[in-house]
Amino acid sequence: MNTFGHVLRLTSFGESHGTAIGGILDGFPPGITIDVDFLSREMWRRKPGQSNITTDRNESDGVEFLSGIFEGVSTGAPIAFTIKNKDVKSGDYDSLRHVFRPSHADYTYSQKYGIRDHRGGGRSSARETAVRVAAGALAKMVLREKGIQIIGYVSQVGNIICPKNEAETDLSMIESNAVRCPHAATAMEMEKYISRLKDEGNSIGGTVSTIIKGCPIGLGAPVYAKLHADLGAAMLGINAVKGFDYGSGFGDLGKTGQELNDAFQSIEQKITTKTNHSGGIQGGISNGNDIYFRVAFKPVATIKSEQSSVNDGGENIIFRPDGRHDPCVLPRAVPIVEAMAALVILDHLLLSKTLYV
Amino acid sequence: MNTFGHVLRLTSFGESHGTAIGGILDGFPPGITIDVDFLSREMWRRKPGQSNITTDRNESDGVEFLSGIFEGVSTGAPIAFTIKNKDVKSGDYDSLRHVFRPSHADYTYSQKYGIRDHRGGGRSSARETAVRVAAGALAKMVLREKGIQIIGYVSQVGNIICPKNEAETDLSMIESNAVRCPHAATAMEMEKYISRLKDEGNSIGGTVSTIIKGCPIGLGAPVYAKLHADLGAAMLGINAVKGFDYGSGFGDLGKTGQELNDAFQSIEQKITTKTNHSGGIQGGISNGNDIYFRVAFKPVATIKSEQSSVNDGGENIIFRPDGRHDPCVLPRAVPIVEAMAALVILDHLLLSKTLYV
Amino acid sequence: MNTFGHVLRLTSFGESHGTAIGGILDGFPPGITIDVDFLSREMWRRKPGQSNITTDRNESDGVEFLSGIFEGVSTGAPIAFTIKNKDVKSGDYDSLRHVFRPSHADYTYSQKYGIRDHRGGGRSSARETAVRVAAGALAKMVLREKGIQIIGYVSQVGNIICPKNEAETDLSMIESNAVRCPHAATAMEMEKYISRLKDEGNSIGGTVSTIIKGCPIGLGAPVYAKLHADLGAAMLGINAVKGFDYGSGFGDLGKTGQELNDAFQSIEQKITTKTNHSGGIQGGISNGNDIYFRVAFKPVATIKSEQSSVNDGGENIIFRPDGRHDPCVLPRAVPIVEAMAALVILDHLLLSKTLYV
Amino acid sequence: MNTFGHVLRLTSFGESHGTAIGGILDGFPPGITIDVDFLSREMWRRKPGQSNITTDRNESDGVEFLSGIFEGVSTGAPIAFTIKNKDVKSGDYDSLRHVFRPSHADYTYSQKYGIRDHRGGGRSSARETAVRVAAGALAKMVLREKGIQIIGYVSQVGNIICPKNEAETDLSMIESNAVRCPHAATAMEMEKYISRLKDEGNSIGGTVSTIIKGCPIGLGAPVYAKLHADLGAAMLGINAVKGFDYGSGFGDLGKTGQELNDAFQSIEQKITTKTNHSGGIQGGISNGNDIYFRVAFKPVATIKSEQSSVNDGGENIIFRPDGRHDPCVLPRAVPIVEAMAALVILDHLLLSKTLYV
Repeated sequence: MNTFGHVLRLTSFGESHGTAIGGILDGFPPGITIDVDFLSREMWRRKPGQSNITTDRNESDGVEFLSGIFEGVSTGAPIAFTIKNKDVKSGDYDSLRHVFRPSHADYTYSQKYGIRDHRGGGRSSARETAVRVAAGALAKMVLREKGIQIIGYVSQVGNIICPKNEAETDLSMIESNAVRCPHAATAMEMEKYISRLKDEGNSIGGTVSTIIKGCPIGLGAPVYAKLHADLGAAMLGINAVKGFDYGSGFGDLGKTGQELNDAFQSIEQKITTKTNHSGGIQGGISNGNDIYFRVAFKPVATIKSEQSSVNDGGENIIFRPDGRHDPCVLPRAVPIVEAMAALVILDHLLLSKTLYV
Repeated sequence: MNTFGHVLRLTSFGESHGTAIGGILDGFPPGITIDVDFLSREMWRRKPGQSNITTDRNESDGVEFLSGIFEGVSTGAPIAFTIKNKDVKSGDYDSLRHVFRPSHADYTYSQKYGIRDHRGGGRSSARETAVRVAAGALAKMVLREKGIQIIGYVSQVGNIICPKNEAETDLSMIESNAVRCPHAATAMEMEKYISRLKDEGNSIGGTVSTIIKGCPIGLGAPVYAKLHADLGAAMLGINAVKGFDYGSGFGDLGKTGQELNDAFQSIEQKITTKTNHSGGIQGGISNGNDIYFRVAFKPVATIKSEQSSVNDGGENIIFRPDGRHDPCVLPRAVPIVEAMAALVILDHLLLSKTLYV
Repeated sequence: MNTFGHVLRLTSFGESHGTAIGGILDGFPPGITIDVDFLSREMWRRKPGQSNITTDRNESDGVEFLSGIFEGVSTGAPIAFTIKNKDVKSGDYDSLRHVFRPSHADYTYSQKYGIRDHRGGGRSSARETAVRVAAGALAKMVLREKGIQIIGYVSQVGNIICPKNEAETDLSMIESNAVRCPHAATAMEMEKYISRLKDEGNSIGGTVSTIIKGCPIGLGAPVYAKLHADLGAAMLGINAVKGFDYGSGFGDLGKTGQELNDAFQSIEQKITTKTNHSGGIQGGISNGNDIYFRVAFKPVATIKSEQSSVNDGGENIIFRPDGRHDPCVLPRAVPIVEAMAALVILDHLLLSKTLYV
Repeated sequence: MNTFGHVLRLTSFGESHGTAIGGILDGFPPGITIDVDFLSREMWRRKPGQSNITTDRNESDGVEFLSGIFEGVSTGAPIAFTIKNKDVKSGDYDSLRHVFRPSHADYTYSQKYGIRDHRGGGRSSARETAVRVAAGALAKMVLREKGIQIIGYVSQVGNIICPKNEAETDLSMIESNAVRCPHAATAMEMEKYISRLKDEGNSIGGTVSTIIKGCPIGLGAPVYAKLHADLGAAMLGINAVKGFDYGSGFGDLGKTGQELNDAFQSIEQKITTKTNHSGGIQGGISNGNDIYFRVAFKPVATIKSEQSSVNDGGENIIFRPDGRHDPCVLPRAVPIVEAMAALVILDHLLLSKTLYV
């Protein structure tokens, strides 16, 4: 259950405060030059402490490759990599050994497994997402050769919503502000709001929106592995995610079929659609339009308030958290969402080859 | 790619106007008495023509079992079943042979496979969902023995929204109205709206909400097969679905961590939470609370208006549909959503057994 | 556990005396013309009663396709098919309801599932192999377009062994005798021996040998899905199979590395090997040489002698079988072995496409 | 394709001369105390240089765990481990960069992937089997708690065959001689033969036999994941393996059904069989008897003779190997075979739990 994908498969491992986290990416095509600078950049985008609105927890995200790469080029053998856990202060977590933190996985893990690595959430820690970013960076190295681009950004923080109108936003601006929002004024407002919540020891959720450009026609399977179903499962597997929609999604429920149908048109024998309410996927299969989807994140459960909780002896306690945390995971979630999307798209790209002998 | 599930696996087959649709349910526990009356009732709930707001297309949904059941009891062998396609008027579809209907799968299938059964959508037809309802009914037979109940209902049609307040709704009322909404006044309003759209030859979407009661603690896997990720993938695999959320979802994005954290409490050594914003799942694993989620459906693409489109020769055409269709699939989608949820829950229930030697 | 294959997946169902047996072949390439005559011929090769040395049980092996084929051509959708069980005389099996037949699956099924369809072995019946032959015939339709040929024959019955020397045998003779042995004198000897055992109500095993010609270089995966490991698993999944070897196998254990290494040679820049002790597979991957392997079958457990056994009440009984049976399954096993090989080769052929973007 | 198993899954990685080899064992039950001494002992059994008839190559087989174990006990999270490659003298292999060694995977890898880590065979190196032994040792820790014992031994080297008669052999003697043969006189003969071949720079194959004692009734799936098919696939995935048989296998092909059927008997209501020609598995499912099987290994391809070969430029060359190698892998293969068997049995043990709700 720690493996993701059909023919491109990522198996991940690791706990927040164990020796290392890491993964094995199997089914990666041979002959791909590994762009270490690009990988580092992607890891940095997810890294805690990158701005004053993220946690100042010191997480080293140096990826070490153990296999599958020979003289800088992928060989077709499984690519294993580790990311060492350097900032281990396990003692910090002694007070949590017997506590079930509210809205964390402590209680469910204890009940399921009967044993739990309590340090920093153990296996349930969002640190595991670094593995996804690393694997996703590898996938992106292939996709960009095929002209496929995956662009994520923060489209909502609390009730602050980025304008949807493409004319008002500028995707090239995403990386230029701390929240990764393509609309400068909104970004500033979001940043201010997050800073305030940080001061209050509170947290907030929102949405990451993603656009996939250049995806070829024909990716996805008709029934149970629809392209959007695989994208959805990928996103829902990210920590703190509570929802996924694509195309018209939850936002256009008030509109009728007449308003939402995407009429086809043929211009010089090239078939396109006049609108793209379908979100680039029809019948589970990409149609060549931009794919776009949203991912809803809840506020992180780690806040600095006293909360009532229980311990593993079944006693009521007052829980006073003191760990470092992000007031809003959204900015750092952008590369994670992109990475999972990259894995899904490459997986389906490879899978689509099996149709033809 | 036509198989769904980890250890309980449904493989489905069939096109709208082929000989039959059907499936193989593998991994179903032995010793379960097959309740044929219950199955028929479930099939009826999905059936077209059940009320004046659904399509009057005549679809026979008689399930015939071919294997895996001996003297009325499951044997542990794969359960195969077929549902014959009786109402085949293929000639009806001759005019569609070369047409790509807007917002349907015609174009993407043609591009992906180079060949397409155009009759009634072929493999992309929502008729395939009858297979899911049949398999889900079998799963429900096991779940109810374990006290697990899955209750779906229509919570939104267009902009008409069912009150969320449990005090105002009555889940026992769901099956008593044509739209399957647990709030009588809202149901009436929805019904009226759908009738109007039917007259206009238009269509509308909405949401199905689902509550799973009695789910044991500990179902779900921590990373890539989180219980809600598997539920989400299951729902996103249903025709016309555009979104999924659970717990606080997309609806509570304005709320902070302080508002959404579910405080634990211990009453007579029994641990519960004071609220359930988590939606019954924490860290990807069920915590014993009610699981609840929403599924967003777009309006069906088949409407009775003239639409601009193209044919497979790349020519612009005017498309005048004349097939029968549902103005709103939501009422009939309820049993499909429940069925997919039942398959996911039973799959994880069986999977959870593998933890312990 | 009733699904076989990586990207080409056969899911089978059915019991000997249920309504039907059948399967779903998923991942089959679109655009393949279905050759019904070829299919019939393959089914006939497996059919009981085809000669006087096989069982005279009347089994109708008419394959009915339910999906995945449109106007005679595969569409890329899952191909479902059924084979009706026509010769059902369930009453014949009443005496077996409580009996555990020696060396059959009756006892283990009862213990594992707690319930058992006792009629003709139920799910454990070799009738299930008809499903494999049907699916394998479809696979062969693709392979022959690629110039890949799979030729099975009976190479041993009891202690009677077909000469290995290619000069002495004539593969074109295989279908011309009842035992499917490419050496006329040996065939006659085998036939005589089997006839004698049939008269005695006894049974005998042997080996089926298979040669795969024209397999491209590069099929197979290096570690756990080595081409020969997948072939081996496929063969060991056939009823009554007790062993598998390929290349030098069990037969050449006395030979040293110096004798068995296959020296490479380059003739006009084309690389070949001087010998083929490797059996066409090196490091789990096909090298372009003929692939050859052997499958060992035990004698069928159904014999006409009185045998001591027990019933499901745990009492010692004398078991007097009276069903019809094959004295030697080998001749009819040839198409089954070929079919499983065809599925494996096509699966790996399709899988090999996923390496390259 | 580098993952093995159904619900207990080993994903392996690593090349002979990369940074490290290792694996992730997923689905391992929580609460199991990790016995490090036992693990070391198992690793030692596979290690090169353990006796004067094995290669004197210095391979450090120190297993380092990275995850899934907390305070010495398994947590249910995936267990990742690495084994560093310490003895890296890549320069040793420069001469092999362009050479296709006879009966190695060099040529097929080059053809399949277009790129190849030539050092020590890269991914195709038998060093990968250390990963299996480590994972298998973990599996054995669970199995021994359930009273399941897996005993492998060398039963044949070249034409020297260990007596099959249980009375003549003494399984407790296996580890007391360098060849791991339970019959002292045969062991001595084998050892002498191997020493002679070592001096000659030649190599030899043989068989490893394995007995599984205490396996519960009911493991295995009826059709495509028969217990012996999964065991067979596991064994055929080991480097240099050319065959697998179980029960009567290839050895008793001359015997009839009357001779090979295992009559049942009930003694004090306990059902057993009078003989065990079935090898402990009937209909693909364990019947409680000892499971026994044989694995055939070819001679290692690395020998010290000049051999004709080709290079990757397609030129004929004379290949003069100078690497260190085992004249006979059989003794060191014993723990590998046992490890793969342990993984299969534990996998099916866990899988069997999914039958019952």
